[in-house]
Amino acid sequence: MNRKITLNESDIPEKWYNIVADMPNKPLPPLNPKTRQPAGPDDLSPIFPMGLIEQEVSAEQYIEIPDEVREIYKIWRPTPMYRATGLEKMLDTPAKIYYKYEGVSPSGSHKPNTAVPQAYYNMKEGVKSITTETGAGQWGTALAFACSQFDMNCEVYMVRISYDQKPYRKVMMNTFGAEVYPSPSDRTEAGRRILEKTPDTSGSLGIAISEAIERAVSDDNTKYSLGSVLNHVLLHQTIIGQESIKQLEYAGDYPDIVIAPLGGGSNFAGISFPFLKNNLTDGKNTRFIAVEPASCPKLTRGKFMYDHGDSAGYTPLLPMYTLGHNFTPAAIHAGGLRYHGASVLCSQLLKDDLIEAVALQQLECFEAGVMFAKAEGIISAPEATHAVAQVIREANKAKEEGTEKTILFNLCGHGFVDMSAYEDYFAGKLSDHEIAEERLTENIKEIEELQPE
Amino acid sequence: MNRKITLNESDIPEKWYNIVADMPNKPLPPLNPKTRQPAGPDDLSPIFPMGLIEQEVSAEQYIEIPDEVREIYKIWRPTPMYRATGLEKMLDTPAKIYYKYEGVSPSGSHKPNTAVPQAYYNMKEGVKSITTETGAGQWGTALAFACSQFDMNCEVYMVRISYDQKPYRKVMMNTFGAEVYPSPSDRTEAGRRILEKTPDTSGSLGIAISEAIERAVSDDNTKYSLGSVLNHVLLHQTIIGQESIKQLEYAGDYPDIVIAPLGGGSNFAGISFPFLKNNLTDGKNTRFIAVEPASCPKLTRGKFMYDHGDSAGYTPLLPMYTLGHNFTPAAIHAGGLRYHGASVLCSQLLKDDLIEAVALQQLECFEAGVMFAKAEGIISAPEATHAVAQVIREANKAKEEGTEKTILFNLCGHGFVDMSAYEDYFAGKLSDHEIAEERLTENIKEIEELQPE
Repeated sequence: MNRKITLNESDIPEKWYNIVADMPNKPLPPLNPKTRQPAGPDDLSPIFPMGLIEQEVSAEQYIEIPDEVREIYKIWRPTPMYRATGLEKMLDTPAKIYYKYEGVSPSGSHKPNTAVPQAYYNMKEGVKSITTETGAGQWGTALAFACSQFDMNCEVYMVRISYDQKPYRKVMMNTFGAEVYPSPSDRTEAGRRILEKTPDTSGSLGIAISEAIERAVSDDNTKYSLGSVLNHVLLHQTIIGQESIKQLEYAGDYPDIVIAPLGGGSNFAGISFPFLKNNLTDGKNTRFIAVEPASCPKLTRGKFMYDHGDSAGYTPLLPMYTLGHNFTPAAIHAGGLRYHGASVLCSQLLKDDLIEAVALQQLECFEAGVMFAKAEGIISAPEATHAVAQVIREANKAKEEGTEKTILFNLCGHGFVDMSAYEDYFAGKLSDHEIAEERLTENIKEIEELQPE
Repeated sequence: MNRKITLNESDIPEKWYNIVADMPNKPLPPLNPKTRQPAGPDDLSPIFPMGLIEQEVSAEQYIEIPDEVREIYKIWRPTPMYRATGLEKMLDTPAKIYYKYEGVSPSGSHKPNTAVPQAYYNMKEGVKSITTETGAGQWGTALAFACSQFDMNCEVYMVRISYDQKPYRKVMMNTFGAEVYPSPSDRTEAGRRILEKTPDTSGSLGIAISEAIERAVSDDNTKYSLGSVLNHVLLHQTIIGQESIKQLEYAGDYPDIVIAPLGGGSNFAGISFPFLKNNLTDGKNTRFIAVEPASCPKLTRGKFMYDHGDSAGYTPLLPMYTLGHNFTPAAIHAGGLRYHGASVLCSQLLKDDLIEAVALQQLECFEAGVMFAKAEGIISAPEATHAVAQVIREANKAKEEGTEKTILFNLCGHGFVDMSAYEDYFAGKLSDHEIAEERLTENIKEIEELQPE
């Protein structure tokens, strides 16, 4: 039996799939935070190129992938799909487990799938430099790689505490030619203001976003880029699910359950949406499970409301499941899942019961990650272990019930640059996190004033 | 045009290729260090299983790969081959550049190609536990993974300074279930003796080998394992070259030059020997260039003599190009190339002018690594950058000469766990190394007494 299902370069999808076309309830519009009126392309054009704004607001079912983008995708795509024979044996389950592995990309996760087209559309419109923020550095690395492919400048504002404590991601960005600045920096008004007040601050993602956006707004040749949440980002990731459908066809199979971690939503959307299309338009009955950390439970304990996408309050108001943009999750190692809201598209789909959500504690996830490494030979990123843990739950349930379920999950990245997380786990330094209901209520109260009338 | 040439699992070779069968001058025998007589299987059986000893002394042209080993190879094999279109464009060279990428393995290098069969043959003979030494940790990680696949215990003696300063490789080994001890440890006579004299020692590879071998000799259920140098290790790596031949066939090409770094020799042998067979038996005329660091120049400045394979002097005497087993190279970041000798097979082939060697300085190699990351999207391990740098030299020469050379090289591992090396490079902390002729002469003088009469 094949363990790996590989495709040829000619199998790289030619179009991105836009689920908006098939959603029974279309997503609500984002709102201009000042006017509380629907935000249009003009609200976005100071920071994004028109090519991406058009995709952001598009209702077309498919959008063509430019040849230049597909050419760069060839560096790591199509990504392999695995039948998890080692894990199935270890769990002694009748379930058939498949996983799509995005860790083979230049930065080691699914992020370059959108970084490359984002850099491309900026380049096409004459943009010379792209700014972004990064926490632990996964997104910054992906964008640095993408910019290097188009000979563009890349300017990354990295939260100071990560810059100081996790230098290796910074070095990866440097290797791809990016400039990386600890945030707050003295390069922006926003940064200087904060440094003046609190010179020893460790920074935050909110501050870094402010700096990156300020740089983009104040320079005609510079735009800003986001690594998740927005519609066009989710759109770009749908190549994951499209390839997966073809690979499962080769294996003669189709998933009963699709599982992925959810931080902003792009990784979950990437593998799920092309299969969800078949639920919506072709009578299929797959279950889709988004896995979030119990320490940041927007899907399972948040509210569906209008909220800012960033903690600084710069972005349009987005209709989404949120914990409130001032919610600060515990410092878990799955940094990519520490986001207060879920993308508009994923939120609407959850509201309409078309997808499901579950929140898991981190100790269960690391235990699953260690099992997976021994069974399958791949050390997963802490974010990805959330999917693995839920897969183990479903596979054990299939064993109890004696059903031969087919489970597919997205192994969105490897853990080679996250070994300090496993070190802390083995040293017993990690713990689970409970969040008091009052704390959630307080944070939600703060955004009630943002709702339209 | 395809950037990537992928194969199916059915293309994983069914046999390892043993170049001894085709060598015009067979390698000289290893000698028992006490008797100075040819060492036979009995000299090796206390530390290696018979299945591997048979391969070590075999002159058969092909040796069948067990099904259980091929099943595990499927986790990452066949590995991809790339046409380096990005690098070719950057260099504006008429040369066609291909590379085989071994970084997709569980530990991120070519090492699991031999770790898996070594664990397998031990398991078949009832061995419960395998010991080994590791410096920076590449080999220990590969063996830890292999042992986890056969539910065997893996005991790694890691040089203390690496154990303390580079904890992430240790954590990777733990994740695959291995026990990792800083060496010298109090678990062996050899370790205790050294700790008593010098409790603050930072350890050495020589001490770690002593500890690992002592543990193997003193326990019937425990054997020892080596990650390079020996004939059976080189044999296992020949799957790299065999897959490469098939991939270049699909591309309609054949290499004029094959390039790989050489530490002990297994990576170089892996990609070269199957092509070298075609030189020896089929009239082909490919050049084979082994690249070593200028700080450890056994091939270009060492002597062909009998010497110990380890610095402690435990192993049989091997006929090889060596700098003397007491030679301590500068602390360059390409730890896998800091070995005093070259494998017996590579040494004999170099002596017979069937392969070539070149020594490069580390700054040129890191510069090449940074170019390669920008051009191809892969950050190379410091060892692998030695091949990249030589490829760039040959591609530039092809441009000067206006010849359309076909160059193939082995990109033996990624650099995700080596970012501190790039950090030092960007910070200007690295330098080139010159070795005075007198120092080489002195080290060689020390091993003259080991020569047979």
